[in-house]
Amino acid sequence: MSDSNSTTKNSADLNPEQHVLELGQRARAASHALATASTQDKNQALHAIADELDSSADELLAANAQDLASAKERQLDAPLLDRLELTPARVASMSAGLRNVAAQSDPVGAMSGGERQPSGLVIAKMRVPIGVIGVIYESRPNVTADAAAICLKSGNAVILRGGSESMLSNRIIARCVRDGIARTAIPADAVQLINTTSRDAVGALLRMEDYVDVIIPRGGKGLTSRISQDARVPVIKHLDGICHVFVDEASDLDSALNVAVNSKTYRYGICGSMETILVAESESQAFLPMLNDAMAPHEVELRGCEKSLKIQPHWASATTEDWSTEYLGPILSVKVVADVQEAIQHINQFGSGHTDAIITSDIQRADRFVRQVDSSSVIVNAATCFADGAEYGLGAEIGISTNRMHVRGPVGVLGLTTEKYVVTGNGTIRQ
Amino acid sequence: MSDSNSTTKNSADLNPEQHVLELGQRARAASHALATASTQDKNQALHAIADELDSSADELLAANAQDLASAKERQLDAPLLDRLELTPARVASMSAGLRNVAAQSDPVGAMSGGERQPSGLVIAKMRVPIGVIGVIYESRPNVTADAAAICLKSGNAVILRGGSESMLSNRIIARCVRDGIARTAIPADAVQLINTTSRDAVGALLRMEDYVDVIIPRGGKGLTSRISQDARVPVIKHLDGICHVFVDEASDLDSALNVAVNSKTYRYGICGSMETILVAESESQAFLPMLNDAMAPHEVELRGCEKSLKIQPHWASATTEDWSTEYLGPILSVKVVADVQEAIQHINQFGSGHTDAIITSDIQRADRFVRQVDSSSVIVNAATCFADGAEYGLGAEIGISTNRMHVRGPVGVLGLTTEKYVVTGNGTIRQ
Repeated sequence: MSDSNSTTKNSADLNPEQHVLELGQRARAASHALATASTQDKNQALHAIADELDSSADELLAANAQDLASAKERQLDAPLLDRLELTPARVASMSAGLRNVAAQSDPVGAMSGGERQPSGLVIAKMRVPIGVIGVIYESRPNVTADAAAICLKSGNAVILRGGSESMLSNRIIARCVRDGIARTAIPADAVQLINTTSRDAVGALLRMEDYVDVIIPRGGKGLTSRISQDARVPVIKHLDGICHVFVDEASDLDSALNVAVNSKTYRYGICGSMETILVAESESQAFLPMLNDAMAPHEVELRGCEKSLKIQPHWASATTEDWSTEYLGPILSVKVVADVQEAIQHINQFGSGHTDAIITSDIQRADRFVRQVDSSSVIVNAATCFADGAEYGLGAEIGISTNRMHVRGPVGVLGLTTEKYVVTGNGTIRQ
Repeated sequence: MSDSNSTTKNSADLNPEQHVLELGQRARAASHALATASTQDKNQALHAIADELDSSADELLAANAQDLASAKERQLDAPLLDRLELTPARVASMSAGLRNVAAQSDPVGAMSGGERQPSGLVIAKMRVPIGVIGVIYESRPNVTADAAAICLKSGNAVILRGGSESMLSNRIIARCVRDGIARTAIPADAVQLINTTSRDAVGALLRMEDYVDVIIPRGGKGLTSRISQDARVPVIKHLDGICHVFVDEASDLDSALNVAVNSKTYRYGICGSMETILVAESESQAFLPMLNDAMAPHEVELRGCEKSLKIQPHWASATTEDWSTEYLGPILSVKVVADVQEAIQHINQFGSGHTDAIITSDIQRADRFVRQVDSSSVIVNAATCFADGAEYGLGAEIGISTNRMHVRGPVGVLGLTTEKYVVTGNGTIRQ
């Protein structure tokens, strides 16, 4: 089951389940100490790791060159090679990322509530780390440092499993992480890398309920679906982003056009990219030609509903399948709708509950859209491509959750914490 | 696969998977309307259901008598018969419960955050229902009304699956719920009962990820474990409550004894009942004889560690198994520990992360215990048997979560909600 690209087998390759079990036990033990580590100690570790990465840049680039050479030999495709490649600038951006996470505020230990009950008890809540997090990712070696940083800051122990194609790079980064941590009061097992490319190791990680509290896949939909299918441990999923912009009646059409073009063309491949635009019938005669002309220089293919085609007959015809397709490319489906109510219905039926926007100057219809659209981000008068942790002020982001429970939308340090009850009496007994 | 206690087979019995799929689709559709229902409409529905239950009390008691007769015929055990039985007082308490939930505050729609980002966007969060909840329970027919009430108040659609032994009672209660709702603006499919006792219906519910967002089992550990094993949908689990009281040095021993006796004997069968008491070595000579004498009238069997047996030689000897056993009965294991640090280690190793208490007058050791004990409720100077939604001021409770994500400890209306991002700009585009 191993597709290792290193030449010698280590003990982790020979018995991947045992290896992962040991990592889990060590992670759980470390998580208890880490949960109560001081903010200062955690920040010191983040800076130490950043320093270690900076001073190991040459070694890391050499290992990465080996990974790249193997990947080219195996004829992996160009986008994957791009994600895999490290440059001096990319290494510098990894260490800068660590220092940024150090500069963020630490939510662990914050108290809320505290109301006194009839019994005399005071009931409060304390924010605490989740515990142990498993991160499974593909190709991009910078995730090793990014995920370590965000888990460490939130007080969680982490077990990392990178792609086999980036194993040599990941090992150097993981070594930097552990060497950095070793110079601080943070437990050494706070960050561990699965040291085998065996697929059995992933299977073991996904089923290790006693030692892993949540799995976060970072990669394409294929990876996420496979992991969700096999996991016994809860998964923070990131599935489709079928995002909509609705141009309401009473919109400033120039502004609506600006937002629409930005939502589609900011970057085609991101999950917050607009895939369908809904246009209120009252605005369609004026807006559709504007949309046509604005998308032309970007060579975006427009696919219209029946009503749109009456206004723009040269467009391709949209099928039902278009309404539920995440193009991730220069294609846009267009639908004319009667009003905000039809827009909301369309989004709740065909959307993926990711990010959807209304462009309007009417406060009541904006409010209705915000309340009734069942998506993790509902946007008023701004582009859907803003769906991103940094843009939301979360600092570092470990992904965007399309789950409904625990955390929805961009997941930062706060999303990796939970709360426990702290109950205080004075010898209080229950009557 | 059917163990129906009714005589004729309905279409749900004949095709349970199809039945549950239809319930799921209807629940999802209802959940969108329900999510934006006004507090007034929801409360009106809760009162209408309560009225309907009051006026259907005779019919309900008759159906329950039939359920009871069948259960006796099938020689089900006495505790189950007790949970199954409805009396006029129990029916009155069901309708009172509904009116109490109506009187609680409604968290749905509450906004938080709202910080302006450098882009100009304002990022806020809105509290929203989870969506569709599946509740699976055994014997107690009152759960039909209780679960309907808490899900309705929190704006969630619910699919209920009661035990086969209480099917006739549940059908009458579900009829009251639907008749009550029908007189209001709440969608009829907000509350649905699975109308077959087939086990295949449970299997279908547990795998219906598109239409069910979370499963809540209400019943014994066996039920919860089976459900967790089979579920593809997230489960809010309630597993063991292996709860501890730690008597610290510098404790008021009379107060500590009071809390210990209350924690053990308030009710043996509840999850917040103390199973192990940890006593600081410095207090053990004085405290163990006090504990012995106080437990004697309750006929609680005491099982001591080696050190305790030196002080109380007539106690039974505790084995390692005792430290991880939830007795749910008149047995208590006793361990002498060096200090608060050993107590914390013991609890994090052998406890179940449910509810654990320290009795102390030392503020620093109290703080250390609160921060380091990794349990959903950490209690200072009060009894563990307080672990309960009503005592925590949550109003109605649908269970106690031993999960780490989303919600820990007693789960009330708030625990059945989540948050979405509301992002506001003024034609803002991403640079």
